[in-house]
Amino acid sequence: MGKVEKKPVKEKIILGLDPGTNVMGYGILAIQGSRMLMIQYGVINMGKYGDHALKLKKIFERVLALVDEYKPDEVALEAPFFGKNVQSMLKLGRAQGVAMSAALYREIPITEYAPKKVKQSVTGNGNASKEQVARMLMQIFSIKEQPKLLDATDALAVAVCHHYQNGALKIKASSWSSFLKDNPERVKKTVLP
Amino acid sequence: MGKVEKKPVKEKIILGLDPGTNVMGYGILAIQGSRMLMIQYGVINMGKYGDHALKLKKIFERVLALVDEYKPDEVALEAPFFGKNVQSMLKLGRAQGVAMSAALYREIPITEYAPKKVKQSVTGNGNASKEQVARMLMQIFSIKEQPKLLDATDALAVAVCHHYQNGALKIKASSWSSFLKDNPERVKKTVLP
Repeated sequence: MGKVEKKPVKEKIILGLDPGTNVMGYGILAIQGSRMLMIQYGVINMGKYGDHALKLKKIFERVLALVDEYKPDEVALEAPFFGKNVQSMLKLGRAQGVAMSAALYREIPITEYAPKKVKQSVTGNGNASKEQVARMLMQIFSIKEQPKLLDATDALAVAVCHHYQNGALKIKASSWSSFLKDNPERVKKTVLP
Repeated sequence: MGKVEKKPVKEKIILGLDPGTNVMGYGILAIQGSRMLMIQYGVINMGKYGDHALKLKKIFERVLALVDEYKPDEVALEAPFFGKNVQSMLKLGRAQGVAMSAALYREIPITEYAPKKVKQSVTGNGNASKEQVARMLMQIFSIKEQPKLLDATDALAVAVCHHYQNGALKIKASSWSSFLKDNPERVKKTVLP
């Protein structure tokens, strides 16, 4: 009573996924006004399950559990469109399809991003290494320790990419690096937690 | 009262699926003792939905609806392992993954069969055409009219293949055609409804 309550800032949750048959990365972002907060990131390991159907079942269950726990408003997926061979693409497609199912089942819109797009959006370089992506994320979110699992940072990266593409911060510049160069003051204000 | 009740025969339901991005065939078999009855077959058409994510959502919802309506004990999928290119395989993999998700979500075991295996199992010829597969099924199930939708008969065929592989009728012969030749009396008794 008598305490002045801050008007709550509308929050949006983005779940980033980097689906694979054996390892799936995930990253959860909260967007509060112009702030971008990292809530959680990690991997779901299916390597221990020998049976292919069981791996797919676990992907579905774990993604559904993430969706039910964090209640994302949007899901962003890293989705390569090219691969070594038809067999690896079939497997990848299945993992993607299963992960997408869980989000679609809960009526959550999904958006796909090619790996190049994610890298360019986060680091300014479409050919950046996974390590470079991870280092940029450490900087953005003030993460002290280098994450061991690059599938997790890749998933976080696709969530960040989705926010940059569709969020409050509309990038009109041709690349993230040129945006950084052109708008140094906006970057400080908006992307640091 | 006073009426002699037949001892109920243990029934098993098999759902056969032929998943694709635009059209998915399905076929439902009831196995009653040594009898194989065709319950339903048809297609789910996703061509009308322009959006890829919406197509996948519909696949999931419709397969889940089939599973909830017919309560299959087992799901059999026709799953090609080869394709024209990596992009078509990625799409096919997604459709497969989404269809599998719905069965796995309801804890129903899934088994995959390569198209060659299905054709050989049903017609005795691994290189049979879709029309030949359809004609053999018409014979088995006394279907009078030639089905227009060969995705539907393909799905029914994978359910029949699954029954031949794992059901009461264990085929030890190298192919269905040699089995037919060696066991004409068993065929009449077991596969005609």
